Amino acid sequence: MIDQQHITGRALRDLVRAGKHTTITAGVAMGYVQANLAILPREQAFDFLLFCQRNPKPCPLLDVTEAGDPEPRLCAPGADVRTDLPRYCVYRHGELICEPTDIRDLWQKDWVAFLIGCSYTFENALMQESLPLRHLSENCNVPMYRTNIACQPAGIFHGPMVVSMRPMTPAQAIRATQICARFARAHGTPIHLGDPAAIGIRDITKPDFGDAVTIRPGEIPVFWACGVTPQAVVMQAKPAICVTHKPGHMFLTDWKDADLE
Amino acid sequence: MIDQQHITGRALRDLVRAGKHTTITAGVAMGYVQANLAILPREQAFDFLLFCQRNPKPCPLLDVTEAGDPEPRLCAPGADVRTDLPRYCVYRHGELICEPTDIRDLWQKDWVAFLIGCSYTFENALMQESLPLRHLSENCNVPMYRTNIACQPAGIFHGPMVVSMRPMTPAQAIRATQICARFARAHGTPIHLGDPAAIGIRDITKPDFGDAVTIRPGEIPVFWACGVTPQAVVMQAKPAICVTHKPGHMFLTDWKDADLE
Repeated sequence: MIDQQHITGRALRDLVRAGKHTTITAGVAMGYVQANLAILPREQAFDFLLFCQRNPKPCPLLDVTEAGDPEPRLCAPGADVRTDLPRYCVYRHGELICEPTDIRDLWQKDWVAFLIGCSYTFENALMQESLPLRHLSENCNVPMYRTNIACQPAGIFHGPMVVSMRPMTPAQAIRATQICARFARAHGTPIHLGDPAAIGIRDITKPDFGDAVTIRPGEIPVFWACGVTPQAVVMQAKPAICVTHKPGHMFLTDWKDADLE
Repeated sequence: MIDQQHITGRALRDLVRAGKHTTITAGVAMGYVQANLAILPREQAFDFLLFCQRNPKPCPLLDVTEAGDPEPRLCAPGADVRTDLPRYCVYRHGELICEPTDIRDLWQKDWVAFLIGCSYTFENALMQESLPLRHLSENCNVPMYRTNIACQPAGIFHGPMVVSMRPMTPAQAIRATQICARFARAHGTPIHLGDPAAIGIRDITKPDFGDAVTIRPGEIPVFWACGVTPQAVVMQAKPAICVTHKPGHMFLTDWKDADLE
């Protein structure tokens, strides 16, 4: 039995590629940066690259491959985005059609892969400072909400920002802001705290994605730009084809969390 | 006579558009962010956007327009990149063919404009802290050098990083690093200090661009990634058409220097 918590990002990718890890990547290869994946044909890739460039908080780009090249040469030389994620979601015209563990048979020579920073990076840093992550202590998914904050549109891509929420005391929220400021490439500082209505959230107990968590007396909701945003925006644009990671089944890079500071 | 030093970026653009300012933009609309310009057809724009994304220190993107749209909607709503720079350089297959003050007659519906952060932003911050800028006190251009540091290539674009150099004492270099760390979108911290040979510079008295400046006893050369890098890289790729600002004749945005922090 391999201790998957204390291996490198590369070792975890090797396990994934060999079919020996097909589940979520929470808590594996601790300290290595994990990434969201979105693959689009070059025709849409320029607009999407522009969308990410204009919306760095929800879409912090870690690496973008050359058209047709499945190797993320910056963050994971030698890796292959067609085989090295535990599970994929394949969308045609915005509709989920399958969830394979390998996309080599689908891959086209004009495809571009986008690897986008993920909240695990700043959550690890918050945990190390003993700040609360309620969704972990309540053993569920982080609550996520659609807001009335419009992303900067780019070509065919537009839509509202999706945020994740973690309840904290005001003092903890201030400390969390200070810590997350170090990780601009993993969503960075919160984008809002306090009144949910101020960003268009009607009912904090009813997240649009993930699960509701307890907000204790003396705590306020703290909101971060969320990596679900680019996925929601791509789905809304309904491109002929798009491949993403299956939620929670992320790509492991060779970078350590500290490399993103 | 209008005091061009204390007007807004927008007011300066209005003067430029009206043909009332056709010279360099050093010292005008002080406190407003100035930008380098590069225009490419959409065919090359994806590769160039990727190049900038992979090389943020020499190529810090401030704004990228939609194909065919001459308005930089993020940094200067209402502006027009075809008329609002004092002078342009038009290159065909890498060769300079003219230096017009207006490019409306050249503009094509697939052209994309890139506005890239500029050293003026951090130089203003350094000046406010009384750090030395030798090229200003010696009334010449900043010295720039080709290095042996390879940029991360992207598609057709590749080449060495070009750096600018400012002599400082070690204590000043440390303070400058601290200040420039605030301006990641204007080249950020230095990339090297001390021995020029360590980054492939053979003779510090012979810059590849700009002018040599005095390095006083007790001073070391301090090197920053330079906005000439993307221009050098584009020229090397010899695209059929490319338009840039004429050196020193920058685009004035609506953003204040502090907005880049």
